[in-house]
Amino acid sequence: PIELPLQAALPPCETLGPEFARVRALSATLTEGLDAEDQALQSMPDASPTKWHLAHTSWFFETLLLRPHAAGYHAHDARYALLFNSYYEALGPRHPRPQRGMLSRPTLAEVWAYRRHVDAAVQHFIECASPAAWSAAAPILALGLQHEQQHQELMLTDLLHAFSLNPLAPAWRGGVVPASGTAEPLRWHGLDPGLVEIGHDGAGFAFDNELPRHRVFVAPFELANRLVSNADYRDFIDDGGYRRPALWLSDGWALAQAQGWHAPPYWQPDDDGGWRQFTLHGLQAIDPAAPVCHLSAYEAAAYAAWAGARLPTEFEWETAARHSSTDASMTRYQLDRMLPQPSPGLLGEAWQWTSSAYAPYPGFRPLAGPAAEYNGKFMVNQLVLRGGSCATPPGHARVSYRNFFPAAARWQFSGLRLARDAR
Amino acid sequence: PIELPLQAALPPCETLGPEFARVRALSATLTEGLDAEDQALQSMPDASPTKWHLAHTSWFFETLLLRPHAAGYHAHDARYALLFNSYYEALGPRHPRPQRGMLSRPTLAEVWAYRRHVDAAVQHFIECASPAAWSAAAPILALGLQHEQQHQELMLTDLLHAFSLNPLAPAWRGGVVPASGTAEPLRWHGLDPGLVEIGHDGAGFAFDNELPRHRVFVAPFELANRLVSNADYRDFIDDGGYRRPALWLSDGWALAQAQGWHAPPYWQPDDDGGWRQFTLHGLQAIDPAAPVCHLSAYEAAAYAAWAGARLPTEFEWETAARHSSTDASMTRYQLDRMLPQPSPGLLGEAWQWTSSAYAPYPGFRPLAGPAAEYNGKFMVNQLVLRGGSCATPPGHARVSYRNFFPAAARWQFSGLRLARDAR
Amino acid sequence: PIELPLQAALPPCETLGPEFARVRALSATLTEGLDAEDQALQSMPDASPTKWHLAHTSWFFETLLLRPHAAGYHAHDARYALLFNSYYEALGPRHPRPQRGMLSRPTLAEVWAYRRHVDAAVQHFIECASPAAWSAAAPILALGLQHEQQHQELMLTDLLHAFSLNPLAPAWRGGVVPASGTAEPLRWHGLDPGLVEIGHDGAGFAFDNELPRHRVFVAPFELANRLVSNADYRDFIDDGGYRRPALWLSDGWALAQAQGWHAPPYWQPDDDGGWRQFTLHGLQAIDPAAPVCHLSAYEAAAYAAWAGARLPTEFEWETAARHSSTDASMTRYQLDRMLPQPSPGLLGEAWQWTSSAYAPYPGFRPLAGPAAEYNGKFMVNQLVLRGGSCATPPGHARVSYRNFFPAAARWQFSGLRLARDAR
Amino acid sequence: PIELPLQAALPPCETLGPEFARVRALSATLTEGLDAEDQALQSMPDASPTKWHLAHTSWFFETLLLRPHAAGYHAHDARYALLFNSYYEALGPRHPRPQRGMLSRPTLAEVWAYRRHVDAAVQHFIECASPAAWSAAAPILALGLQHEQQHQELMLTDLLHAFSLNPLAPAWRGGVVPASGTAEPLRWHGLDPGLVEIGHDGAGFAFDNELPRHRVFVAPFELANRLVSNADYRDFIDDGGYRRPALWLSDGWALAQAQGWHAPPYWQPDDDGGWRQFTLHGLQAIDPAAPVCHLSAYEAAAYAAWAGARLPTEFEWETAARHSSTDASMTRYQLDRMLPQPSPGLLGEAWQWTSSAYAPYPGFRPLAGPAAEYNGKFMVNQLVLRGGSCATPPGHARVSYRNFFPAAARWQFSGLRLARDAR
Ligand SMILES: [Fe+3]
Ligand SMILES: [Fe+3]
Ligand SMILES: [Fe+3]
Ligand SMILES: [Fe+3]
Repeated sequence: PIELPLQAALPPCETLGPEFARVRALSATLTEGLDAEDQALQSMPDASPTKWHLAHTSWFFETLLLRPHAAGYHAHDARYALLFNSYYEALGPRHPRPQRGMLSRPTLAEVWAYRRHVDAAVQHFIECASPAAWSAAAPILALGLQHEQQHQELMLTDLLHAFSLNPLAPAWRGGVVPASGTAEPLRWHGLDPGLVEIGHDGAGFAFDNELPRHRVFVAPFELANRLVSNADYRDFIDDGGYRRPALWLSDGWALAQAQGWHAPPYWQPDDDGGWRQFTLHGLQAIDPAAPVCHLSAYEAAAYAAWAGARLPTEFEWETAARHSSTDASMTRYQLDRMLPQPSPGLLGEAWQWTSSAYAPYPGFRPLAGPAAEYNGKFMVNQLVLRGGSCATPPGHARVSYRNFFPAAARWQFSGLRLARDAR
Repeated sequence: PIELPLQAALPPCETLGPEFARVRALSATLTEGLDAEDQALQSMPDASPTKWHLAHTSWFFETLLLRPHAAGYHAHDARYALLFNSYYEALGPRHPRPQRGMLSRPTLAEVWAYRRHVDAAVQHFIECASPAAWSAAAPILALGLQHEQQHQELMLTDLLHAFSLNPLAPAWRGGVVPASGTAEPLRWHGLDPGLVEIGHDGAGFAFDNELPRHRVFVAPFELANRLVSNADYRDFIDDGGYRRPALWLSDGWALAQAQGWHAPPYWQPDDDGGWRQFTLHGLQAIDPAAPVCHLSAYEAAAYAAWAGARLPTEFEWETAARHSSTDASMTRYQLDRMLPQPSPGLLGEAWQWTSSAYAPYPGFRPLAGPAAEYNGKFMVNQLVLRGGSCATPPGHARVSYRNFFPAAARWQFSGLRLARDAR
Repeated sequence: PIELPLQAALPPCETLGPEFARVRALSATLTEGLDAEDQALQSMPDASPTKWHLAHTSWFFETLLLRPHAAGYHAHDARYALLFNSYYEALGPRHPRPQRGMLSRPTLAEVWAYRRHVDAAVQHFIECASPAAWSAAAPILALGLQHEQQHQELMLTDLLHAFSLNPLAPAWRGGVVPASGTAEPLRWHGLDPGLVEIGHDGAGFAFDNELPRHRVFVAPFELANRLVSNADYRDFIDDGGYRRPALWLSDGWALAQAQGWHAPPYWQPDDDGGWRQFTLHGLQAIDPAAPVCHLSAYEAAAYAAWAGARLPTEFEWETAARHSSTDASMTRYQLDRMLPQPSPGLLGEAWQWTSSAYAPYPGFRPLAGPAAEYNGKFMVNQLVLRGGSCATPPGHARVSYRNFFPAAARWQFSGLRLARDAR
Repeated sequence: PIELPLQAALPPCETLGPEFARVRALSATLTEGLDAEDQALQSMPDASPTKWHLAHTSWFFETLLLRPHAAGYHAHDARYALLFNSYYEALGPRHPRPQRGMLSRPTLAEVWAYRRHVDAAVQHFIECASPAAWSAAAPILALGLQHEQQHQELMLTDLLHAFSLNPLAPAWRGGVVPASGTAEPLRWHGLDPGLVEIGHDGAGFAFDNELPRHRVFVAPFELANRLVSNADYRDFIDDGGYRRPALWLSDGWALAQAQGWHAPPYWQPDDDGGWRQFTLHGLQAIDPAAPVCHLSAYEAAAYAAWAGARLPTEFEWETAARHSSTDASMTRYQLDRMLPQPSPGLLGEAWQWTSSAYAPYPGFRPLAGPAAEYNGKFMVNQLVLRGGSCATPPGHARVSYRNFFPAAARWQFSGLRLARDAR
């Protein structure tokens, strides 16, 4: 049996039933206006088709919740076990990741039939499970919802990448996005944390990688009051930021040269010597005050070096977030403005690269059963990002949340907040 | 102006109008039963989505016929010039070939609107063109129809390749295809041609690469009465054909080792130690008497060496075809049996690899204008295939027809007919 | 001017002169018995020819010490600046790293002339420098000596890799290496460090990446009394360690599958179903009690998982090393036994993979001037190794020493020592 | 037994003995002035170290002549069978071609010991073989000599390529090579061959690929009186030849773009807006009248298209060579001028790309035994070059000689002579 010691108290079915419906419905909402062809695109091995995300998140409930826990459950289609397993070695063979875009079958309509089948079975389980079954399965249900939310963000970032390769510059949602006004002046907030507690504190859901809560010594440091803005970043470009190796990590410089980087990946020169940006709302003017995003960690670190600063560690960031007077919860999630905006809070708008490698916390134990592969096996060669983004579903991120990507990744809503040693 | 000296007499509009409608309608027929997602698949850089073929063949008429010759023609969408240009450097920049599968937009429905727009404009041109315009444009119209027929074959071979990567093994057209009976015993027909004329002889359409007709000396040789069958090829496999380097060309052996070849690409081991074959009709039993296909030239040559024979030259093949008592026209084109069958004729069922490199005939001149790029620039690193296949639209192939692919290509309906020196 | 705040007190020239001669002489000793052809081998981009190491270490003294500080110094050959710059962007263009093996010129003899030229100039500088020049340059001289020692280890590991590709299995030094007796039983030493000081403590030389000394909280843990032995590792292999994905980090499993790993890279099956190992002394029997080495971090982590343990963090390791009752200095450096041996000490024999990503210490500042590139720009995508190896020159490693390589690196003398959480 | 029907009459041992000594001695001469390190360079998989050529040509005699025919022969070192087999599958496993540069052992001195061992054994065989052994082996001895001559040319072209990657621009033989005066004006010679005989005519040695002599119909054509010169080619460059896709074969254009071609590979811009050329004599001024060389077939064909002409077929070339009033034998072979010079003859100075794919002649039969792999298995994906070059040893080339390389090859002494259809 899967052991998921994620939450002190089991969530009651009265809570999880509506929550399940709400989360699953958002996935549908995100695909509105997209053709079946749009939802079948896979633009690189790292990305997946929208349709695949829809099916995989259903497979997750089917495989981890319904098959082991829902008595009498019948799989919708036995062949889907192979097609929609992402990376779980313990759960059998998988369709090769780079070929997810080859799955014209099952069609989008068939994937929706699969989703409906799983939805009904899960709702039935929520309503009718025995207390013992519920006790065993509720943590998995909660995990499945968080999992679906993670894929909801990926659905958008993967689609954005695919659309960026189409010369017609399609928009997920159309319309002109107005500029967001003036950015706050950069200010530094000093902290002297000393020995602090890091990691999830026990209330509510957390992934295994946020645990256990443990002590870390954090020296005095300063953190910027806001994310680096597009205008800030344009200054870096104009000052030769992409041409000065002294600013760059060695791997980053090599990659930038090999791939010809000279701006963030979705920035395009406009006719006036300036830039515009390809977004989920199509080509838009650069919003100067808005946070820059779609940076690799290499670009983030080079910018920080240019600015005489550095990236924060994930421990500095979490410490600062716990001290922040602004509400730590993220509330903005606007389908008609799915790109970062200026914000006073520590969380939200753009994931913030840290200098911390993604590693297990002292005493880390992966979940039991197949969910053991959920986070632990990726704890090498990646950096932690903190804070959530404009595309993170409401209620998903939190102060202890650890997102992670390789330093070279540029297709996420990833930006940065400057830090520096205390003066 | 484009100079297309392909035909002695211009075809009259009374002929070309219905022919245009007939050819264009077949493209539609071929897509019946396919979802939009199926038609968007690109499984490798060499292949294109069905939808792209539908648009590109329309672009060809629009760009080479309507724009220069149809007064008052308005382009359906100016942006399609970039999207659906295949390889014509003279016609401006192109969307990168490996990213044709990224074009979820225009959608399939929009591509059909484009086709209808082009269809109407071409039909209007056919009906109303001035004699001068007609005289200039009719050869291009004829070329465009042949071009569309070429793509009709590629639509099927490209789709077959894409479907082969789906573990669900989708079928283009379903149903069990019955075996085709007993193969003819292998017999050899001897010829002693001497100095012969090779190339198109002036009646009807021909591509520039079939011209000019010229003299070639062909020594005595023998040609097999039929194509190599699946049963023949299975003997080759069983006799270690894929494990004996002495049978192989050096490049072929290296490729076969690197990619782990041990059978034709769509053959799969079945549970009884035998084989089945993935086809446009899904997984089917191997039909022993039917011609083997989807061979690379390397496999064809290795088989021939194993059989104590060799591939014919394209000149031997054409000479034999001109002498053949069987009707040179291909008549079988069955949507419910789109895989090779035994046949007494020289033409049809499976393209036949020759040992002849694709090269210009003496005195070759490419077409004037952008159509110059149609054939000539590919005359290196490829081999000629002769004879047409089960997927070649009726009326398209002919005795002088030269198809060409790199020796490594395995996704066409490509098989072989044995030849040997006269005894 | 280069600012090198590495040592509290400047080393006197009376010390550095003989030290310079001693270190430089060891490089010569290491090449004894090698032909010029051996010393020109570059077997992969990560490795360099012996000859290149000899020249590059001289270039380092010439470029950072002699040119800026030795009045009247004339470069031996102005063209060597390009050839022997390794990765210093600030010092101008470089010969491409993967083509170091193409430098048959300068010949080995010419490289030795270069070395002698630099040796003489440095010795002259040591004897005759003004106090001001000495004060500015002595830290660089010290750095250059440590730099040469680092390359002395690489000379051996790079040569071993190159020789491993030769079917003749050449030996750097010949002879049969006797087995080393019985390994200690595995025992665990528990520590409860709490808040500790990490980093160099100010006496003697240290690299910038060992600074500044800073506080880290280290939870209770246990560390094994010895390195994992060849016999231990053979048990892992025999138990299917290379076939069980659950033991592996995801990146490691993918790499192991892609490259067909089934044992450490220099292990070869012998005729009796066992193994032998290619070493600097040629093919040798596996020494069961000796530390396993030439592991990637992926293999090290998989072994640890199999053993129910984990890799230590670099902080745990350093803490344990400071507590160790065994002498922290490494004394064994035997040219006739250049492969790991059992040892009671924390240091020596085989570099020990840690789970710690190579990152700047809080407050890290790279050296001023071109030496800024020495360490800092590599602080991503690598893991820290601790402890030194059998090939580390005497006096080079220390408790605070941080070596670093990508997790995939397998050509170093890299092994592991198990750690686990306190029970 | 190997059946080598290459020559009507067996060469007498009185002839072959001195010839053997002479050919073997030239290999030594070619390495004069080179260090052991120079002779160990392998700059790409297609090229081999000088030392490897020296050993492989000895291996050829040992394996094909001495082992089967010389009673009592003892192999010099049994391990060399693996190291110095180039591509003969029938002769067992081979050291991987791309790793020939890793063979620092055997050293150059050891390779010379191997050569001396083979030399002595061959000379002893020549002197003492029984008539039966001589009759069986003499053709192989003759083949071995031609084989060594082929490698003598490769020794120089491979070395040139390796040296070109060294920023020091080493010279094989030093000194300034004076310009060669004025080129002949371009003139066209018309021929109307009709049905001609192609292939070796029976007197003297020929490779199997020159046989059998057979009839080919060749239409009227014109051939240029001289090779295309450097000055001619500079006009092509200046006229945008490398920027105009219409001039290029499709594969060639793609490769030229991908690799950034803008001149022949060894041409380098000089400081005056002109060019200089890296040669076996180091960097030299471009010699305007001298034949251009180191062209790929793509560049040759593009030049020809630009000049309103085309490449000849190999049949046109051979026909013209047989009609040529100039002596067909090549006499110039100057170690101090190992680069093409103007010449009135059809043969010599630079290999001439033809448009003919390398294919078997009608009735082609490879040699029996392992020598079957010598030529036949490469008869795909390559083009024929005719005529020999400045680096072809005297007496090696002839009118029927067929050299062959992939169209992309640029490291040979390959140029072109224009042809065109008769007016
Ligand atoms: Fe997932
Ligand atoms: Fe086309
Ligand atoms: Fe260095
Ligand atoms: Fe050879």
